[in-house]
Amino acid sequence: MSWVHPAWLARLGRLERPGRPGRLGGDAGAVLRLDPGCGLGAEAYTISRAGGVTTVVAADEAGLMYGSFHALRLGDGDLAAETHAPAKARRVVQHWDNVFVHPVMGQVERGYSGGSVFWEDGALTGNLDRVGDYARLLASTGINLVSVNNVNVHAGEARLLTERIGEVAVLAERFRPYHIRVLLSVSFASPMVLGGLDTADPGDKRVRAWWAAAARRVYARIPDFGGFVVKADSEGQPGPYAYGRTHADGANMLAAALAPFGGEVYWRAFVYNHRQDWRDRSTDRARAAYEHFAPLDGQFADNVVVQVKHGPIDFQVREPVSPVLLGMPATRLAVELQATQEYTGQQRHLCYLPPLWTSVLSTVADHVDAVVTVSNVGEDAYWTGHPLAQANLYAAGRLAWDPALDPGAVLDEWISLTFPEAARETLHALMDRSWCVYEQYTAPLGVGFMVHPGDHYGPDVDGYEYSRWGTYHFADRDGVGVDRTRATGTGFTGQYPAPWRDEYESLATCPDELLLFFHHVPYRHVLRSGLTVIQHIYDTHFAGAAAVTAMRRRWAELAPELVGAELHERVRERLAEQERSAVEWRDQINTYFLRKSGVPDAHGRRIF
Amino acid sequence: MSWVHPAWLARLGRLERPGRPGRLGGDAGAVLRLDPGCGLGAEAYTISRAGGVTTVVAADEAGLMYGSFHALRLGDGDLAAETHAPAKARRVVQHWDNVFVHPVMGQVERGYSGGSVFWEDGALTGNLDRVGDYARLLASTGINLVSVNNVNVHAGEARLLTERIGEVAVLAERFRPYHIRVLLSVSFASPMVLGGLDTADPGDKRVRAWWAAAARRVYARIPDFGGFVVKADSEGQPGPYAYGRTHADGANMLAAALAPFGGEVYWRAFVYNHRQDWRDRSTDRARAAYEHFAPLDGQFADNVVVQVKHGPIDFQVREPVSPVLLGMPATRLAVELQATQEYTGQQRHLCYLPPLWTSVLSTVADHVDAVVTVSNVGEDAYWTGHPLAQANLYAAGRLAWDPALDPGAVLDEWISLTFPEAARETLHALMDRSWCVYEQYTAPLGVGFMVHPGDHYGPDVDGYEYSRWGTYHFADRDGVGVDRTRATGTGFTGQYPAPWRDEYESLATCPDELLLFFHHVPYRHVLRSGLTVIQHIYDTHFAGAAAVTAMRRRWAELAPELVGAELHERVRERLAEQERSAVEWRDQINTYFLRKSGVPDAHGRRIF
Repeated sequence: MSWVHPAWLARLGRLERPGRPGRLGGDAGAVLRLDPGCGLGAEAYTISRAGGVTTVVAADEAGLMYGSFHALRLGDGDLAAETHAPAKARRVVQHWDNVFVHPVMGQVERGYSGGSVFWEDGALTGNLDRVGDYARLLASTGINLVSVNNVNVHAGEARLLTERIGEVAVLAERFRPYHIRVLLSVSFASPMVLGGLDTADPGDKRVRAWWAAAARRVYARIPDFGGFVVKADSEGQPGPYAYGRTHADGANMLAAALAPFGGEVYWRAFVYNHRQDWRDRSTDRARAAYEHFAPLDGQFADNVVVQVKHGPIDFQVREPVSPVLLGMPATRLAVELQATQEYTGQQRHLCYLPPLWTSVLSTVADHVDAVVTVSNVGEDAYWTGHPLAQANLYAAGRLAWDPALDPGAVLDEWISLTFPEAARETLHALMDRSWCVYEQYTAPLGVGFMVHPGDHYGPDVDGYEYSRWGTYHFADRDGVGVDRTRATGTGFTGQYPAPWRDEYESLATCPDELLLFFHHVPYRHVLRSGLTVIQHIYDTHFAGAAAVTAMRRRWAELAPELVGAELHERVRERLAEQERSAVEWRDQINTYFLRKSGVPDAHGRRIF
Repeated sequence: MSWVHPAWLARLGRLERPGRPGRLGGDAGAVLRLDPGCGLGAEAYTISRAGGVTTVVAADEAGLMYGSFHALRLGDGDLAAETHAPAKARRVVQHWDNVFVHPVMGQVERGYSGGSVFWEDGALTGNLDRVGDYARLLASTGINLVSVNNVNVHAGEARLLTERIGEVAVLAERFRPYHIRVLLSVSFASPMVLGGLDTADPGDKRVRAWWAAAARRVYARIPDFGGFVVKADSEGQPGPYAYGRTHADGANMLAAALAPFGGEVYWRAFVYNHRQDWRDRSTDRARAAYEHFAPLDGQFADNVVVQVKHGPIDFQVREPVSPVLLGMPATRLAVELQATQEYTGQQRHLCYLPPLWTSVLSTVADHVDAVVTVSNVGEDAYWTGHPLAQANLYAAGRLAWDPALDPGAVLDEWISLTFPEAARETLHALMDRSWCVYEQYTAPLGVGFMVHPGDHYGPDVDGYEYSRWGTYHFADRDGVGVDRTRATGTGFTGQYPAPWRDEYESLATCPDELLLFFHHVPYRHVLRSGLTVIQHIYDTHFAGAAAVTAMRRRWAELAPELVGAELHERVRERLAEQERSAVEWRDQINTYFLRKSGVPDAHGRRIF
C-alpha cells in the first residue's frame, strides 16, 4: 500500500493527523510542542531525542508534522537538537491525470501505475480514503502542493475550474490535514470554452474579468487553493500567441486573478515548434524555451512561477541543464522533474532517478523557488507499478525539501522505512547505479530520443529521425550527433552563461556523457575516456544489458519472505522484462551503428 | 455516387433488375432473350447490334444481366455477334468491415472510404438501398460473390454466423437480384466462442456436428449462401494448429458442413510467424505460405478454395508472384488482390492498380479458379474516398471476368462510363502510369515495407527493420536487399518452378524491379538498366515526386465543370496531399541512402 515498512505504516497510521501538539499519537516516547515564539520559520522544526523521548518543536502545525515524520525516520539512540527547514517553500507534485479516459493516452497520460488516484472514467474517485493515504504519503516526504489533473486540459477536464470545482474541493479536504494545497491545471481558452466569450485575449477586459470571477468562485470553495498550472502555446494547447501577446501577458493575467487570494500560477516553459520539418536544419528545439522565455525575464508578476523542464528537450536519460534555469534571474522559476518514467523504462525498468535529479539540482537549486515532480502514482496496489519505483516518489519530496541531500542516502532512508535490514544490500546493489545502467543500454552520450515513437518504450533508433518533433541524431556512415556549437552548429551553446557556454562549445572540454548532445563527431572520435565513440557505444550496451542480467539474478537470490512473496514476484516479472528489453536495446543500437559505421567491435562480440 | 457517368447512371437506374427477359428497361433499342437451349454456359451471353437494336441472348438470367450491362458499355454503330463468358466462375469481392468499430482499426480495417456500407457501429446499416446500389455496381463489373465482414473475426462479429444470421440474410436479399451470393467470414473457434464447446478440434465429432448444424441453419435463412471465408492460424486468429491438425483438416471440416448445400470455403494461405525475432536470419516470411500449404496439395476437399495473396509478403507495390499459386496444381486456388490501397497510398494517392494485377494474372490466371479482391468501398459519397480509386474496383470485376483484358483498355472503359470525352486525355495522363509513379517514389526495386508501422501510410525506412513482422531490407553502409537465393540466402527462390527459380536466383537475369527482393547488393551494383542501384534510387525518387507535381498541375488545368466542381475539388485536395507525401518519400528515402552509402547524387540534386 505504500513504501512504508509494515512497522512504520502502523506507526504512521497511529499518527492520525501528525503534527497535532501533544504526544505523538500512540507513541509514548515523543512530545510535539507548538511554540509560535520559538524563532523557527514556516514548516521548520527542531528535533532532539534524550532518554528515549523524542521532542519536536515548531512554530506552526506544518513544522510539527514534518518533525513527527522525521521522528518516524529516526533510528535508535539519542539525538542532539537539530533544526530542519525546507530549502524551498514550494515542493510540488503534479499529476497528468485525465478525468475522462483519453482515447490514446488513457486515464493517466504517461502513467504506468494503472488508473488515476483522483479520477475514474469521468467521475471523482469513489475511493477518497486512498486519496487521504496518498496525502499522508506525500506529506511524509515533504511535498506541500499537488496538482490534480493533466496539463493537457481537454474539454471535459476544463470544467473542473467551474461547475466541477466541488470535486476539486473534496480532494482539497483530503489533502488539507497534511498541509498540502491543491493546484488545478487550467485551459488558457477557458473564457471561451467555459465562459462563452469569443476570445481569450489577455488584453480584453472581459477576459480578465472572467478569470477574476472564476478565481473568486474557486476560493469560495477552497480557501487555501494553491493556484493554476498552465501549459500554453505548447503541443497544441491554446495560449497568448493567438492574440499577439507574450507568455508574460498570459501568465500575469491569471496571476492578477489569483493574487487577492494568495494563489500562484505555474506557467510551463515547455514551448517549441512541434511541427518542425526534419529537413529544416536552422531550427533547434533545444533553443526554443530560452528563446521564448529569457527575453521576458523581469516581466512576470511576483506570483508567477515559470516552470522549466530540467533539460532543454524532454526528460531524456541524459541532458544538460536547461539554460532557461540559468538565464532568468529576475523571475521566479521552478525546475520540473519527471518521476513517471516516460523515457526511462516506464516502471517496467528499474531506474532510480535521484542521481540524475541531483546532478541538475546541484547546478540550479539556488536559481529556483520550487521543485516540481511529475507523479508516478496510480491506482496500482504498490502505488507505482514497479514497487521499487516508489523510491523515486519518496526522493522527489525529500530533494524538494533539501536539494543537497545525497541520492544514496535518500535511497538508504527509503530502504530503512520500507524493507527489513536483510534486504538492504540487495536493494542498493540493484538501485544505486540503475540510472547509469539504463543510460548504458539506451541512447548513447546524450544524443537522446532513440525510443519508439508515441509510446516511448523500447528502442527505435530512427523512430524520430524524420519526424516533426525536432529530436534528431543525424547519424550517417561517418558519424553521429547534433552540432549545437556557436562555431558551426545551431548556436545553442550560446544560451549558457560562462563557464558552460565554453565548456560545451569545445570538443576538448565537453563532458563525454553530453558529447553527442552538443557535437556531431566521427565514429572514431576519441572520448576523454580514451575510447572511440563507436567502441564506447558497443561497450556500454554490452555492459548495460549484462548489468540488468546481474540485477535479475541478484533479486532472484533474495528470499521472497523478506519482502513479501507478491512484491518479490512483481519485481521479478519486471526485471525479466527489463532484461529482455535491455538486450533488445543493446542489439538494435549496436546493429544500427555497426551497419552504419562498418567498424567492428574491438572485442568481437556478437552484433547482428 | 458511383463511377457511373450521370447519363449511364440514369440508364442503369432504369434497368431496375437488369437481365430480366424482354426489352432493356426503358431502352427501346435493346432486346434481351432468355434461351436455355442456346448452347451458352452459365453467365455467358451473346451480344450483337444491328439497325440500332442491341440483342442479348443467354441461357440464364445472369447471362442476360451481364449482357445488358455490356450493352450499356457499347458505343454507337453496329456490332457483329460476340459471345462472352467469364473466365472464372468465382469473381469475388471481400470486405474487411467490422460490425463493431474496432478501437484501433475502426469500422473498416484498412478502409479509406469512411464507414462500412454494411455495418454501422454494431448494427446493420439503416441504408439498405445503398447496399442495393452497391450490388448493382458490383454486378455491372462482373462480381458474383461478396463477403460482408472482416477476415479478422472479433467476438461480436463471430455472432453473424448464428443469432445475427438474419442480418446477413437481409444483405443477401439485396444482392440476390444481381446474381451475387454472400460469403461470411467466420472464426475457426466458433464452436467454442458460440457453441460453448471446450474445443474447436476438427477431429472432434461434436465440433464437426456443430459446424454441420450451423451451416444448416445458415442455409435455412439464405438458400444461395456462398460459403465461408477463413483466416486461420494467422496473425493471432485461431486455427487447426492448436489441435495438431493441418490447414487441410480445418478447411475440409468446414467444407463438409457446406457441401450438402453447395457452399464453399475460402481458406486463406496468409500464414506466417508474426512474432519473428529480427535477429533470426534463418526465418524468411516470404517462404511461409508455401511451407505451410504446398505440402498439403491434393488434400483439400473439392469445395475448398485456398486463397493466396498475389505476392509472398503482403500487397507491396512490387512483389514477385507467390510461389503457392504455381505450386499447388491439385488444389483449387484463388488469387487475392487488394483494391483498398493499404500500402499504395490509401486512396489519398492516385494509384491505378490493374497494371500490377495483370502482371500477376498473366502468370497465374490459368492456375486459379477464383479472383478475389479486397474492397476499397465505404460510405463515402464517391464510394472510394478518392473518386478516381473507383477505377480499381471497376477493374477488379472486369479482370476477374477476363484476366486477359488490357489494364489501359479497362481504364478507358471506366472513363467512358464515368466522365465526358473532354476529360479522357487528362484522366489517362494522370492514371495510366500512376502505379509506376507510386513505385518510383516509395520503396525501391522490390524491397518493400518502408512504410510507417501500424497505419502503413508514409515513409519510415527503418520502421519495420527491427520489428517482429519479418519484413526487413538489411540496408547497411555497403548495400541493401534481402538475399533469398539458394546459393547464399534463405533459399526462397527454390520454391519456384522453372524458369523463375533460376531467373530470380541469378543476378544476371533477376528483373531490376525485383532485384532487392531477391538479392543483397552493393550500392554501386549496376542494374540491367545501366544505372547503379544508388543512382537508380535517387533518379526514381526525384522522377516520381516530379511526376506527381505534373499530375497535380494537369488536374488543375481541367475545367471543374467537366467533372463536377465537388469531384474536381476532392481530387485536387488528394493530389495536393499526394504531392506533399511524395516529396516526403523522396526526401526520406534519398537522405536515408545518402547517409548510409555516402554516394552523392550524380546530378547534384538536393538531398538532406
